[in-house]
Amino acid sequence: MKIARFNENRIGLIEDDTIADVTDVLGSLPAVRYPYPLGDPLIANLGTLVPRFVAAAPSAVRVPLAEASFLSPVANPTKLVCAPVNYLKHLDEAAIDPQIHHDRHLGKIQEVALFLKAVSALAGPADGINLRHLDRRTDHELELAVVIGRTADRVSRDQAMSYVAGYTIGLDMTVRGSEDRSFRKSIDSYAVLGPWMVTADEIPDAGALDMSLSVNGELRQKANTADLVVSIPDLIVWASSFYTLHPGDVIFTGTPDGVGPVLPGDHIKARVDSIGEFSIEVSAA
Amino acid sequence: MKIARFNENRIGLIEDDTIADVTDVLGSLPAVRYPYPLGDPLIANLGTLVPRFVAAAPSAVRVPLAEASFLSPVANPTKLVCAPVNYLKHLDEAAIDPQIHHDRHLGKIQEVALFLKAVSALAGPADGINLRHLDRRTDHELELAVVIGRTADRVSRDQAMSYVAGYTIGLDMTVRGSEDRSFRKSIDSYAVLGPWMVTADEIPDAGALDMSLSVNGELRQKANTADLVVSIPDLIVWASSFYTLHPGDVIFTGTPDGVGPVLPGDHIKARVDSIGEFSIEVSAA
Repeated sequence: MKIARFNENRIGLIEDDTIADVTDVLGSLPAVRYPYPLGDPLIANLGTLVPRFVAAAPSAVRVPLAEASFLSPVANPTKLVCAPVNYLKHLDEAAIDPQIHHDRHLGKIQEVALFLKAVSALAGPADGINLRHLDRRTDHELELAVVIGRTADRVSRDQAMSYVAGYTIGLDMTVRGSEDRSFRKSIDSYAVLGPWMVTADEIPDAGALDMSLSVNGELRQKANTADLVVSIPDLIVWASSFYTLHPGDVIFTGTPDGVGPVLPGDHIKARVDSIGEFSIEVSAA
Repeated sequence: MKIARFNENRIGLIEDDTIADVTDVLGSLPAVRYPYPLGDPLIANLGTLVPRFVAAAPSAVRVPLAEASFLSPVANPTKLVCAPVNYLKHLDEAAIDPQIHHDRHLGKIQEVALFLKAVSALAGPADGINLRHLDRRTDHELELAVVIGRTADRVSRDQAMSYVAGYTIGLDMTVRGSEDRSFRKSIDSYAVLGPWMVTADEIPDAGALDMSLSVNGELRQKANTADLVVSIPDLIVWASSFYTLHPGDVIFTGTPDGVGPVLPGDHIKARVDSIGEFSIEVSAA
């Protein structure tokens, strides 16, 4: 199942070139005032919502894909967890480019470990990427993004994949510089997810997906998730050994080589096999 | 006004040695299903809630302070923003201790910039600190914590302090090691706030507060916020130049010298002038 959030927080199922708008089903979610529970309420309740989505779809209003504005398929994660240098060829390109490593940000993933992007940086394809600090270099980083489906605390490797709700395409937009990763990568709109989430049952092997990114029609990144240094289950084990992952938390699995700068006016096209693709515009904030 | 969250998400006003339970006022907050808006709904609506708290207090149930279990006064921040090495004496102690800097985490705050702790790491004094990875060193870091009251996007220095809702005491618990700060400092319960939030009107100069921390009765940290390298308004300007601060977002302003390890069974006492103090127990997760 491909579940999209689109237009004004509508929820829909992708069916070929249309979306079945099943938003009314969300009326079954509990209403809360204070405090909000940790995690994304749609993802946390996916088990009960999916059968209702299926039941509602036949009589749902259809929206043509081409007329929909796609938002991030996850609305309320507690964490955007990211794997740095998780493809060896990206470590290689970072090592020879001082504009990337800044004499500070080198090191194998096993030493550097995972980092966070601010959840306030979340955006969908329709939001666009709004560049700040135009005097500095800002790069695209294409990634497979894993959406956690249920509370994961110190999980074992053989159980790890059972915590995955689905997959989406991630862009880990990054200002280069000396600052901490969680600062440079957390500007509003610098955590793009889209165009929808594909539930885990539709992707039996997320460790063998082709992906590519182009800017203004020029191919910049092309890789396969088979080349991940730390695999998806190992990322889940590692992350959950430090902190509890909540429903809707996202793991950006790392970017392959080919990262490069973007400027206002650029168009990025991101594609991951078995998920789909989206285009997003870059502008000045 | 001192506003506490205590017991089972009760909200109360501190009056000498009792709490006036004004939780019923929260019934005026809007009920939401999906998605949750960004930020803490209590802090976001503080302007309309405070007069209602005042009106409700005279007839409120009183709970003795000694019988209350204090939770983090902020429940739903989007970000816990933290200033590293924001007291020069802490930079000095880090520089001579390889167990702190690990050949990696040195550098002035102007180069390192701000980092994030996961919001899932939030805890209050009643939650205790639950240590993971007991084979590694985990340190206490006492900090003045600033609670942002309204949406702050690229604010000017002269306006910066008008975005502050209040202040609380923060513990930035930290595993030492080579990993990214946002990983080592985001273990569940490693972001302690408490015992309550003091509204900004009660603290005209947050840049002149004595603070201290002791472990098992032994004084470990003692400082004054006058020694902050980057001041509170400058931290707000800097942070909001990268990302929007939302109501309830917290800025941990940095720790002074005297950081040191804790072990299961330890009792930490943290105190900041004009706010108050809390005790918290350390145990194994």
